[in-house]
Amino acid sequence: MKLNVYATPDCAADKDLKDKIVVVIDVLRATSTILAALINGCKEIIPAVEIEEVINMSKNYEKDSFLLCGERNIQGIDGFHLSNSPLEYTAEQVADKTLLLTTTNGTRAIKRAVDAKEVILCSMTNVDAAAEHIAAQQEDTVFICAGTDGQFSMDDVVTAGAVINRLKNKVENPSLGDLAVVAEAMYRANAHDLHTLLKDSLHYKRMMEAGLEEDIRYCLTLNAAPVVGIFRDGVIKIRDKFQN
Amino acid sequence: MKLNVYATPDCAADKDLKDKIVVVIDVLRATSTILAALINGCKEIIPAVEIEEVINMSKNYEKDSFLLCGERNIQGIDGFHLSNSPLEYTAEQVADKTLLLTTTNGTRAIKRAVDAKEVILCSMTNVDAAAEHIAAQQEDTVFICAGTDGQFSMDDVVTAGAVINRLKNKVENPSLGDLAVVAEAMYRANAHDLHTLLKDSLHYKRMMEAGLEEDIRYCLTLNAAPVVGIFRDGVIKIRDKFQN
Repeated sequence: MKLNVYATPDCAADKDLKDKIVVVIDVLRATSTILAALINGCKEIIPAVEIEEVINMSKNYEKDSFLLCGERNIQGIDGFHLSNSPLEYTAEQVADKTLLLTTTNGTRAIKRAVDAKEVILCSMTNVDAAAEHIAAQQEDTVFICAGTDGQFSMDDVVTAGAVINRLKNKVENPSLGDLAVVAEAMYRANAHDLHTLLKDSLHYKRMMEAGLEEDIRYCLTLNAAPVVGIFRDGVIKIRDKFQN
Repeated sequence: MKLNVYATPDCAADKDLKDKIVVVIDVLRATSTILAALINGCKEIIPAVEIEEVINMSKNYEKDSFLLCGERNIQGIDGFHLSNSPLEYTAEQVADKTLLLTTTNGTRAIKRAVDAKEVILCSMTNVDAAAEHIAAQQEDTVFICAGTDGQFSMDDVVTAGAVINRLKNKVENPSLGDLAVVAEAMYRANAHDLHTLLKDSLHYKRMMEAGLEEDIRYCLTLNAAPVVGIFRDGVIKIRDKFQN
């Protein structure tokens, strides 16, 4: 079982993803938000790259059956129901609804993996559930970090490291690519205090400056949303809610 | 002064390089080989991406004034004078000659940086000279790692870390991108024994399997070739040998 990590969607070539298990990570905040929505009972999430795409899609849904969700450059979008803060995705808000979601980095990463065998959403908030699911597949697995502005983002890479750290105990002799080794070592050395590791990283600092400390705290809470989210045929659901 | 690291040439967008000081790193072995050739008195090095390009260029040179140099997938190229082993680039072989060089990863990385303000070649073998030169420029600096097969390669990233480690003592409050932070921490934690860090990395293992242990040992010898190599107008020379 090979484990490779790519620091941004653009760092991976199409052939690197084809027929692999692809694990998409945007810990601050898209995948944390998606997992919060799933555990709080939303029907499904449909990720879209462009704002216009979200608005066009919404015309196919009955009033009150959907929510417009997302952000641009950390801020909520005018006229949208929810921003990209996982704390807004309460059961009261999202239960049984279809969420049409666009985020700056995360949804691009999710839609990058069209030729994958399976696409899993991952954050610190589901790290054990994700690792258990991946270990059960026994397939070569690729971690696609969303990155920040197309750049290597430490928060995402250390999240990949957290999953790989667990896989090392669940899988016999996994073969780790160089960034997988680096990510796992970074997690292992800092697992006791991720905030100290990340406080000088670009995305973390930007979110702190935007007053989103509570969001960061939630997103870095291990196993706060212990579900496996799968992206298939354009839709994200909890794994058990797909027909097969 | 901003310091950013890109794990492969493809991870950097054109705008990330434009008007920056760009430091190209392919420690195993292209930049180590180039620096060995420079310190041993070659006239200049002309990097080319394709083998055919090298052969065509050679038609413009007088017999005995040039050498065909390079490798594909670690092996020397049929009919070429020198492979990509820095140990072959002795004064006896290279003095006063023009070297026409193509390598699998390194020359691609060098030629990627056409819009840079200046392009510097870097390896563990010139880490202090490179850091001193970069510190004197007082400009935003981007490290382009050659990578291995288009993937993050730990050997190159830790070499960037070695330079950044020195810059932190020479430059006031440099602003480090996330991968720059990771690279510097990786170097700092392993500076006493780079071989143990790298022994499980893809490129290092591949070279060991090819019997190139002596090459690895040379390439990871700090300051074995303490010169500043510059790529300008298609040609690599020691900095002082350019007219201005």
